Amino acid sequence: MGEKLKRILTGVQSTGVPHLGNILGAIIPAIEFSKKENIKSYLFIADFHSLTQIKNSEELKKNTLYTAAAWLACGLNPDKTVFYKQSDIPQVSELAWYLSCFFPFKRLSLAHSFKDKQDRLDDVNAGLFNYPMLMAADILMYDADVVPVGKDNLQHLEITRNVANRFHNVFGNTFTLPVGHLQDDTKLITGTDGAKMSKSKNNIIDIFADEKVLKKQIMSIKTDSTAIEDSKDWKNCNLFKIYRLLAKKDEIESMKKNYELGGYGYGQAKKELLNLILKKYELERGRFQHYIANADKVEKILKDGAKKANVTADKVLNRVRKKLGY
Amino acid sequence: MGEKLKRILTGVQSTGVPHLGNILGAIIPAIEFSKKENIKSYLFIADFHSLTQIKNSEELKKNTLYTAAAWLACGLNPDKTVFYKQSDIPQVSELAWYLSCFFPFKRLSLAHSFKDKQDRLDDVNAGLFNYPMLMAADILMYDADVVPVGKDNLQHLEITRNVANRFHNVFGNTFTLPVGHLQDDTKLITGTDGAKMSKSKNNIIDIFADEKVLKKQIMSIKTDSTAIEDSKDWKNCNLFKIYRLLAKKDEIESMKKNYELGGYGYGQAKKELLNLILKKYELERGRFQHYIANADKVEKILKDGAKKANVTADKVLNRVRKKLGY
Repeated sequence: MGEKLKRILTGVQSTGVPHLGNILGAIIPAIEFSKKENIKSYLFIADFHSLTQIKNSEELKKNTLYTAAAWLACGLNPDKTVFYKQSDIPQVSELAWYLSCFFPFKRLSLAHSFKDKQDRLDDVNAGLFNYPMLMAADILMYDADVVPVGKDNLQHLEITRNVANRFHNVFGNTFTLPVGHLQDDTKLITGTDGAKMSKSKNNIIDIFADEKVLKKQIMSIKTDSTAIEDSKDWKNCNLFKIYRLLAKKDEIESMKKNYELGGYGYGQAKKELLNLILKKYELERGRFQHYIANADKVEKILKDGAKKANVTADKVLNRVRKKLGY
Repeated sequence: MGEKLKRILTGVQSTGVPHLGNILGAIIPAIEFSKKENIKSYLFIADFHSLTQIKNSEELKKNTLYTAAAWLACGLNPDKTVFYKQSDIPQVSELAWYLSCFFPFKRLSLAHSFKDKQDRLDDVNAGLFNYPMLMAADILMYDADVVPVGKDNLQHLEITRNVANRFHNVFGNTFTLPVGHLQDDTKLITGTDGAKMSKSKNNIIDIFADEKVLKKQIMSIKTDSTAIEDSKDWKNCNLFKIYRLLAKKDEIESMKKNYELGGYGYGQAKKELLNLILKKYELERGRFQHYIANADKVEKILKDGAKKANVTADKVLNRVRKKLGY
């Protein structure tokens, strides 16, 4: 007897072209996970969320296109995964309204993510405050069983379960209670300055960039000042840390030896990393360019996904409206 | 040359059967106003708002039905007024999300109505906090030029204009900026205990109630203990204050005389008030009963109204989505 089909839902921030850290840490694992048996996966680009910070239509559209193109380039299969934009299922805002009437204001104001953003951002708008309700709606709208979450998002999942339970206390079982799947945070990808790779730290490697830009990013990797002829410490080398994540076993061993033997400069090592990335991601780079050049294809894929997502969304929303008396 | 057609929008709380105070203070003036030339009126029952306090589908439905039936019974003409339920245009929650991304959290937390409710209510949910954004969406969604407001709601209209302006600052003119039409608050209707008539004070007169209930309400009007044979002070009599609002001039004069002459008891006066109400509102009472017994007719009227409202809502929402980049 087979296991029950589990529905897994992932929301993706649409912040433009994902960097190597995003790809290795989130995109590839999610795509691999979606290939498992007994898994039905939903993946959406959170472009309603983007509006809390981005008030520029061109930037918003570009970010969505680049994000979608990157996922598709990395192998997301839209036949296997329901892949759509949050804004194509605007009913989610209706569900968010309902949920907000069941969740205490006081408790929402205690959400970590909001408090954090309140300190950090200039534009602290009401949308930012409400976002956990929209996120809860995003999850509950599709009867998701499992939601992959980083540590930062654990509280949002708790809020989602909590508001669903509050609704259930009044109207009986209505929603599927999602379970969080804590993502392996150990796979921190080192940025060009040695810190965790992050767009805000300006230390990224963008595997989709054109060769000139990519080369510049790789050449900027911080290394120590050991002379070419001397032996080098691969254990504490940023360059090596990145290389190790991408290369094959024998390539890694070979570079280790080069480091230890001396007579091998960081410039050479950087060139090898560049060539490795260009070769390893040749297919993905080509696909990405293809999608960027054919935005209508991406839009079509997302619209097809939205059609499928819509069927589930309408079903759940009707269930909710009926209980509420609408 | 005719004046430009002005669009006036009124939101009606759906708190069940409106009492005499609601009818004289709000319903009749609104219906009269909607008959003016150069006016296109929109009137909706705020049943999304109700959810902030009512978590009971039967109560919610009944309140909506009774509210709609009362407006129709009082003469609202659905051919002249676009009459609909808020929940039939759920896109309003989408617009509310957009607006909330343009309005500072801090400013929203200063809204009087929320602060007031925070102190008064048990269920202080996030919906209550967000409501001004939904209300702004309700207004801006229909390109309303004029919104009749009581003093309590003046701030909500300010918030609406403010968030529209913030949106305009980024994306240029998009919304019609509504103007508030401060409603004459002088017409305070006296309740059975002498205080302002209000459901929460349990001092109402329900002209739609069956005769027995109505009689009981009228008999409960507080009067002083002047003996039947003595002259009575009509100037300070709750009963007379109510009678005066409803009766014709000669009837009022005649009752004044009865008060002054003495030999005329409050019981008699109450009976006269009861008869006056039954006669004056005979038509309305009949219509109300008809609508309550034919809920499907009311539903049909509201759905027809929603179809018309939807045309405007979609037009405005598309305008907004285009600017935002969706």
